[in-house]
Amino acid sequence: MTVQSISAQYFPEEPKAPVVKSTKGSSSKQAIETLGKVFDARGAYFVADYGKSQGNYIADVDGNLYLDVYAQIASIPLGYNNPALIEVAKSDKMIRAIVDRPALGNFPGNDLDEIVSDILKVAPKGQDKLWSGLSGADANELAFKATFFWYQAQKRGYHSDFSPEEVESVMHNQAPGAPELAILSFERAFHGRLFASGSTTCSKPIHKLDLPAFKWPKAQFPSYKYPLEDNVEANKKEDKRCLSIVSDLFKTWSVPIAGVLVEPIQSEGGDNHASAEFFQSLRDITLKHGALLIMDEVQTGVGATGVMWAHERFNLQPPPDLVTFSKKFQSAGYFYHDPEITPNLAYRQFNTWCGDPARMTLAGAIGKEIVKHDLTTRASEVGDYLYKKLEKLQEKYPKHLRDLRGKDRATFIAWSLENGAARNKFLSDMKEVGVNIGGCAEDSVRLRPTLVFEEKHADILIDAIEKVLSKY
Amino acid sequence: MTVQSISAQYFPEEPKAPVVKSTKGSSSKQAIETLGKVFDARGAYFVADYGKSQGNYIADVDGNLYLDVYAQIASIPLGYNNPALIEVAKSDKMIRAIVDRPALGNFPGNDLDEIVSDILKVAPKGQDKLWSGLSGADANELAFKATFFWYQAQKRGYHSDFSPEEVESVMHNQAPGAPELAILSFERAFHGRLFASGSTTCSKPIHKLDLPAFKWPKAQFPSYKYPLEDNVEANKKEDKRCLSIVSDLFKTWSVPIAGVLVEPIQSEGGDNHASAEFFQSLRDITLKHGALLIMDEVQTGVGATGVMWAHERFNLQPPPDLVTFSKKFQSAGYFYHDPEITPNLAYRQFNTWCGDPARMTLAGAIGKEIVKHDLTTRASEVGDYLYKKLEKLQEKYPKHLRDLRGKDRATFIAWSLENGAARNKFLSDMKEVGVNIGGCAEDSVRLRPTLVFEEKHADILIDAIEKVLSKY
Repeated sequence: MTVQSISAQYFPEEPKAPVVKSTKGSSSKQAIETLGKVFDARGAYFVADYGKSQGNYIADVDGNLYLDVYAQIASIPLGYNNPALIEVAKSDKMIRAIVDRPALGNFPGNDLDEIVSDILKVAPKGQDKLWSGLSGADANELAFKATFFWYQAQKRGYHSDFSPEEVESVMHNQAPGAPELAILSFERAFHGRLFASGSTTCSKPIHKLDLPAFKWPKAQFPSYKYPLEDNVEANKKEDKRCLSIVSDLFKTWSVPIAGVLVEPIQSEGGDNHASAEFFQSLRDITLKHGALLIMDEVQTGVGATGVMWAHERFNLQPPPDLVTFSKKFQSAGYFYHDPEITPNLAYRQFNTWCGDPARMTLAGAIGKEIVKHDLTTRASEVGDYLYKKLEKLQEKYPKHLRDLRGKDRATFIAWSLENGAARNKFLSDMKEVGVNIGGCAEDSVRLRPTLVFEEKHADILIDAIEKVLSKY
Repeated sequence: MTVQSISAQYFPEEPKAPVVKSTKGSSSKQAIETLGKVFDARGAYFVADYGKSQGNYIADVDGNLYLDVYAQIASIPLGYNNPALIEVAKSDKMIRAIVDRPALGNFPGNDLDEIVSDILKVAPKGQDKLWSGLSGADANELAFKATFFWYQAQKRGYHSDFSPEEVESVMHNQAPGAPELAILSFERAFHGRLFASGSTTCSKPIHKLDLPAFKWPKAQFPSYKYPLEDNVEANKKEDKRCLSIVSDLFKTWSVPIAGVLVEPIQSEGGDNHASAEFFQSLRDITLKHGALLIMDEVQTGVGATGVMWAHERFNLQPPPDLVTFSKKFQSAGYFYHDPEITPNLAYRQFNTWCGDPARMTLAGAIGKEIVKHDLTTRASEVGDYLYKKLEKLQEKYPKHLRDLRGKDRATFIAWSLENGAARNKFLSDMKEVGVNIGGCAEDSVRLRPTLVFEEKHADILIDAIEKVLSKY
């Protein structure tokens, strides 16, 4: 059987291989300097030419053409200049959403029901409602708001009035109106960089330093030993150890914990995996203590791990209460199913825009293409192919390819190097052989290609890795 | 001299008058019910038909055509389906921004410099740099981050390293890494509804109830007596009273105040004005205490008050340190001028997207059209025309048109009714005569038309108000 190449269908003109002219080219350097006068551009790796980018290849202004397995920090879903999305971008619906941006909560357009329903077609199993936001951090904070509203409603009664003390004290940012409540998250987690989401983020100090934070608790997320098949018992013990920390925090934390926030795979924090059993037990703990379970699928969602939503592999009963999304969906928000997660009154979960219908329209189209071409299955196949090749490389270069992880998780693959300096050198050397690739945690490499990354691209990636490692 | 009608140029087919078929029409009702199954639609007034909306008129699915002086909560800048913006929406630049959304901090496109520079062409005087976000709340929180980074750098030294204690403690959300610092804002202010922005918002309890908050201080914003010309001394005294509260809070608040956040006109909180002298003194107080001044122009900015940025009337020296924007710009972020407001290291003010180039491209185009047609001057002229007519109505209906405010502030006009019930009835009755109009605070009406609202529209509005009030 010949596997159909979706990327060839979308991108008949996709380059066959990277082109490296000069990764330290003067055009990028100069453009970054110019941009830096008006915009903080110190994080820029290069200046891209999106008009010349195509499928899995990103072009820069120096004529380089990189195979892109980072994809805008895990965000480009279907390749650069995908023709199906270009068609949507040119549609009347999109043009209206751009020029007549509604305040969706007050004046929804007559296409909003369709826009939301299109997104819900690919919602996690069990989720049938949506609230929309603007970024992953925003999505998480909106989910926190929903969680706190729900938690207080459980105590007060869903339809009960606020007390005069609550109404008065809240205007001074004081309890009982502004209660002392917490969201529990995990060490090494990343959930965004606003103030509440930042208080749940715990992957790198640079994300948080100098910013006031809510004093919310951090449990520990399992640190597994690899390869998994040789460390079953040790890893089971690790699950248990971490779960008991969560249970203890519920009993001992100085303020009540209203919700637990967790990534199905800790991504920015190092591609740290945990077992389905760990997540099932976490679900049980939240039920036992009357807290909600918020699954942060900002990076893992939308097909990246070979299923539409990574947590669906865990078979949680009942499903997570809120599932947040962003990145590959190019839109943001959360899914939920419990009607009581809708606050008891209008205007509690509210803001001017309540999302962006342009980005939501795109999300619906992305979901449709994923289903139409069964891209989750394709991502799994390509991931298996790639993983096997990486295992072989690992045997050859064990020092530079440690703790390979992401087996059976499509192309959501990572490994560690011996330290941060070695990792940074590797990322930089990969550019010299034509691959744009990203890191996570201090010493790891993460693969985050598009969903139209195929075996032919995997071959190029593997060759490039080998080319770099063979010189070390 | 005949004044040119820009709206007639943009919208040759703009309706001549509202059409009211049935404001309680069954199509809207049914559409809201359907939408409500998947999306919290309880705040929806009606379901709009944006395809049929034109210029200053918004259409709904029941065939009503309202003159819109609320404009998506003060957000539509140049009228519905503005042809100049439609052209931009169809451009290759926009299509690229939609389908190839970059992580702007890491992989800016070669058009980003132009996109940012276009926005800066209409930046407040003295501001020459931009950081971009996604909503007004987001813009304010990004400005808080910049403020806290700056404040700690003043103490530590801009180029100094973090201490080991800071790096360690921040991962537990504890000082000194996560220091106890505050942003001072004002009672009746509105700055957004995320957790940090929500802690500075103080207009209605419903925005805040049940949400944990930072215990940040609230000063009092002047409550002027109207008409202003008859209450000069009393209002001066009121300025002084409020300023001394600010000074006292700097001396007495339990944690250091790093920044003062203020709207040039408190908008959601009731269109509360304060004098240039008040703002000048506020500027002096922040300088004296080594805090930054953040001007929240989310609602007042982009021409709404007859100048591009409302605070420019105050002639502040030096200009505000950060100016946040959103709404009429359809994009969000902050302007600044001091290079030290750029954090000392990359990746401190950072996130995946760092704004939305699609919305930023639109902002540049909006600014261009405003300048091209001198729409700030036109807004002033129309505002003066409208204000005079409202003054006459006020004489006739003093009970229902109290404390008229916004003289010489273009169409940024508001007034109060005797109480909340009367106000709500007025807003609802205005729909019956074909006008979509919004409220602010508990008992006030705010006018927030587009920048292409002209004398002919003002006449229709005045007639409609009179029609409603004459029946009371």
